[in-house]
Amino acid sequence: MKHLLSAADLSVDEAILLLDTAAQMAATQSREIKKLPTLRGRTVVNLFFEDSTRTRISFETAAKRLSADVINFSAKGSSVSKGESLKDTALTLHAMGADAVVVRHWASGAPHQLAHSGWLGSVGNPVAVLNAGDGTHQHPTQSLLDAFTIRRHLVPDEGVGRDLKGLKVAIVGDVLHSRVARSNVNLLRTLGAEVTLVSPPTLLPVGVESWPCATSYSLDDTLRDWQPDAVMMLRVQRERMSGGAGGFFPSPLEYTRRYGLDQRRLAMLPEHAIVMHPGPMNRGLEISAQAADSPRSVIVEQVANGVAVRMAALYLLLAGGSSAEGTSI
Amino acid sequence: MKHLLSAADLSVDEAILLLDTAAQMAATQSREIKKLPTLRGRTVVNLFFEDSTRTRISFETAAKRLSADVINFSAKGSSVSKGESLKDTALTLHAMGADAVVVRHWASGAPHQLAHSGWLGSVGNPVAVLNAGDGTHQHPTQSLLDAFTIRRHLVPDEGVGRDLKGLKVAIVGDVLHSRVARSNVNLLRTLGAEVTLVSPPTLLPVGVESWPCATSYSLDDTLRDWQPDAVMMLRVQRERMSGGAGGFFPSPLEYTRRYGLDQRRLAMLPEHAIVMHPGPMNRGLEISAQAADSPRSVIVEQVANGVAVRMAALYLLLAGGSSAEGTSI
Amino acid sequence: MKHLLSAADLSVDEAILLLDTAAQMAATQSREIKKLPTLRGRTVVNLFFEDSTRTRISFETAAKRLSADVINFSAKGSSVSKGESLKDTALTLHAMGADAVVVRHWASGAPHQLAHSGWLGSVGNPVAVLNAGDGTHQHPTQSLLDAFTIRRHLVPDEGVGRDLKGLKVAIVGDVLHSRVARSNVNLLRTLGAEVTLVSPPTLLPVGVESWPCATSYSLDDTLRDWQPDAVMMLRVQRERMSGGAGGFFPSPLEYTRRYGLDQRRLAMLPEHAIVMHPGPMNRGLEISAQAADSPRSVIVEQVANGVAVRMAALYLLLAGGSSAEGTSI
Repeated sequence: MKHLLSAADLSVDEAILLLDTAAQMAATQSREIKKLPTLRGRTVVNLFFEDSTRTRISFETAAKRLSADVINFSAKGSSVSKGESLKDTALTLHAMGADAVVVRHWASGAPHQLAHSGWLGSVGNPVAVLNAGDGTHQHPTQSLLDAFTIRRHLVPDEGVGRDLKGLKVAIVGDVLHSRVARSNVNLLRTLGAEVTLVSPPTLLPVGVESWPCATSYSLDDTLRDWQPDAVMMLRVQRERMSGGAGGFFPSPLEYTRRYGLDQRRLAMLPEHAIVMHPGPMNRGLEISAQAADSPRSVIVEQVANGVAVRMAALYLLLAGGSSAEGTSI
Repeated sequence: MKHLLSAADLSVDEAILLLDTAAQMAATQSREIKKLPTLRGRTVVNLFFEDSTRTRISFETAAKRLSADVINFSAKGSSVSKGESLKDTALTLHAMGADAVVVRHWASGAPHQLAHSGWLGSVGNPVAVLNAGDGTHQHPTQSLLDAFTIRRHLVPDEGVGRDLKGLKVAIVGDVLHSRVARSNVNLLRTLGAEVTLVSPPTLLPVGVESWPCATSYSLDDTLRDWQPDAVMMLRVQRERMSGGAGGFFPSPLEYTRRYGLDQRRLAMLPEHAIVMHPGPMNRGLEISAQAADSPRSVIVEQVANGVAVRMAALYLLLAGGSSAEGTSI
Repeated sequence: MKHLLSAADLSVDEAILLLDTAAQMAATQSREIKKLPTLRGRTVVNLFFEDSTRTRISFETAAKRLSADVINFSAKGSSVSKGESLKDTALTLHAMGADAVVVRHWASGAPHQLAHSGWLGSVGNPVAVLNAGDGTHQHPTQSLLDAFTIRRHLVPDEGVGRDLKGLKVAIVGDVLHSRVARSNVNLLRTLGAEVTLVSPPTLLPVGVESWPCATSYSLDDTLRDWQPDAVMMLRVQRERMSGGAGGFFPSPLEYTRRYGLDQRRLAMLPEHAIVMHPGPMNRGLEISAQAADSPRSVIVEQVANGVAVRMAALYLLLAGGSSAEGTSI
């Protein structure tokens, strides 16, 4: 692996390597001193073209736990035109000797363009690009932390070395605008899980029939009849609700009634099932406070696993060979 | 001590321990290399819901001098509703493995809520919360650096191991809106000093009669008749002057004439008396340039002592037992 | 050297020492681990009164490569009046124990005022001030990285220990508003190079006749007849074009036609000549994409050299004696 651009690019072996490395990283995070010397002297740049404090501090924490130096570069509000800015910025970061660029961009495909343009070097040691979310396209570390969380809970022996075959995951909400949904469909399928997207018809993307998953308009039916092992609630972008998505959205009340996760719906699930959310939650909209804080909820664990997964990705891209075995972390 | 939330919570022994530890820290800061390895591998998050560059960089400097990793998290302008945001943010920071959260918030009580909600962990090693200013309520590290500065100047042997018994401190200005005044009244009283608040009647809080201090409307009378050992000028929030405080405020000219510290008033003080200000100053309003820069002024020293006091607080909360003795700093 | 305020202050020996030290720093930057322990425990504050992500991250990278702690302090948008703010800020940074302040300010002369006011200490070890661009006045590290780049390409043996005697440099564009042009004229002359400023008459400063360089209104004539060894294109501030500079500016089309560097003009240059730009470029305005990306362009190298030069400046100001020899970097 040279870059981490899309969950769709990962082979089963790469995905399992990332998850197993994350498990090793997670083990170091329960120590009192959580810092490892692994990336001492390396420079990680957080290049954020859109705000996301949560994702930025997760990557920043991960990089610092590995002893890397972190440079935060908020490009939001920059007035330069997109193409120029991205190219010049990339050439600049490469020239300054960055080892990795974590990029968040409003345009789908920007991280791919960064990685494959040659702007960040193409021979020898090119700068590693990690996609921290691009438009409505991909958010691969989110899907990795989700898969990590599912595996740890639902596969024997915390799932080390294993895929997710035989598990059923429901992804619920605004699939149309969600890079989290896209990334998860890709990675969960690669790892052998079955996926059902549950969404109002207007919030399913055109062409979803060709995706490797089922779709459903009814959350009640899916929970009751399909009995998923994990239910992943998507965040509703409130600004889309007030007409911003051209009438795609039901009203908040209607949305909650049909697609919100609450105690009644929780009770339909098998006993071992877990509840997930990428955060930040709209409590009372897509998920009730009781569901969010129930013993089945692993939402806070997802955040902790996010640091472990990002440590693993940075480690494998910057210090790793094709295997994490034999490394002393 | 698990948290540092309010000067009112500190016992005499805790306050003296903090000041004595700060004295040890201050001694290290005159070395050419000021950095100590004490908190290597620990993560300190600066969570600022309102801007305060001065306080933020003082804490950031203190944490870095102790070799901690620092994550800056500016939550200002976030659109999420208060309750949700604080809870979700806290859960996130805990999950990411933060060791301490330095919080500045516009709402009085927010740091207390953070510390006692359980959101940051409640068993084992909960995240330590340090209040860096909440609404009009508390700013405990400011009062500690003030007490440290007073003790160093006015108690024999730089006051190590000692309280402030027998000293008289005048706090002058807009007491109503000042967390600095509240914190100082608490801590100075705990340490045995006498306090007089000097303020226009409209800028004294309701219920001030029950505070453990005297009040006065006349700066001239207080300086001449009471002969304070230290005079602490409060910052005037200029935006409050232009009608923002509902007519509470005199005009700037009138304020300066009645409550401003200048050469004439300085001359009324005993020779050993010191002049203090939490900064940033409005030179020419609450304090004249000559008073600010006079040999009696310890204002710049307060800033340096702020770093030492914050190092002490971080050290005691994250690395300390009940005593700093025997630690090699 | 105590400070780095202006290229005009540098003697030949100081300039060559800086360039030679930068050459040593550059050599360390091709290693896999680029970090040196030289400034461990020192604190560098980036004090930016105007945005400049590019310059800020170059200094931040340089300081971190030398193991210094970096505090970013964006003072933009601060409402305090200029004089007060600068004085209080300086007193604060000194009191907090900053070792160096990298300052970017919209007001010409602000770094000089900081350095010579005594606010940052005047006896013993005053805080070192590095000018990262002040108004239309100076940008000394930019001129050092430009001289470094020219020397490396056009003087035998990468120029170590040598000046720039015999070389001809054309600086093209909006000289009137450019601190880059001013700094380069100073430093290039000190190092013995000949300089010609090429600019529309309205964009040459009053009094340019007394500068130690030639001027020309025609880029074609200068390139064809003078045969410069290096052509340094200045960035056009687009906001000045739309009437902002009071009619000083030609239209963009006219500007490009008369002062833009393109393939046709490149072909007029001697074969060894190099093309420079301080970035960020307006491709298609002052420089064509082909010229920017041509093999003669050293624009990306300038960025890399910027880190090396800033490492050298920080090293010499904070750790160096009068010579870099014998230091193990």
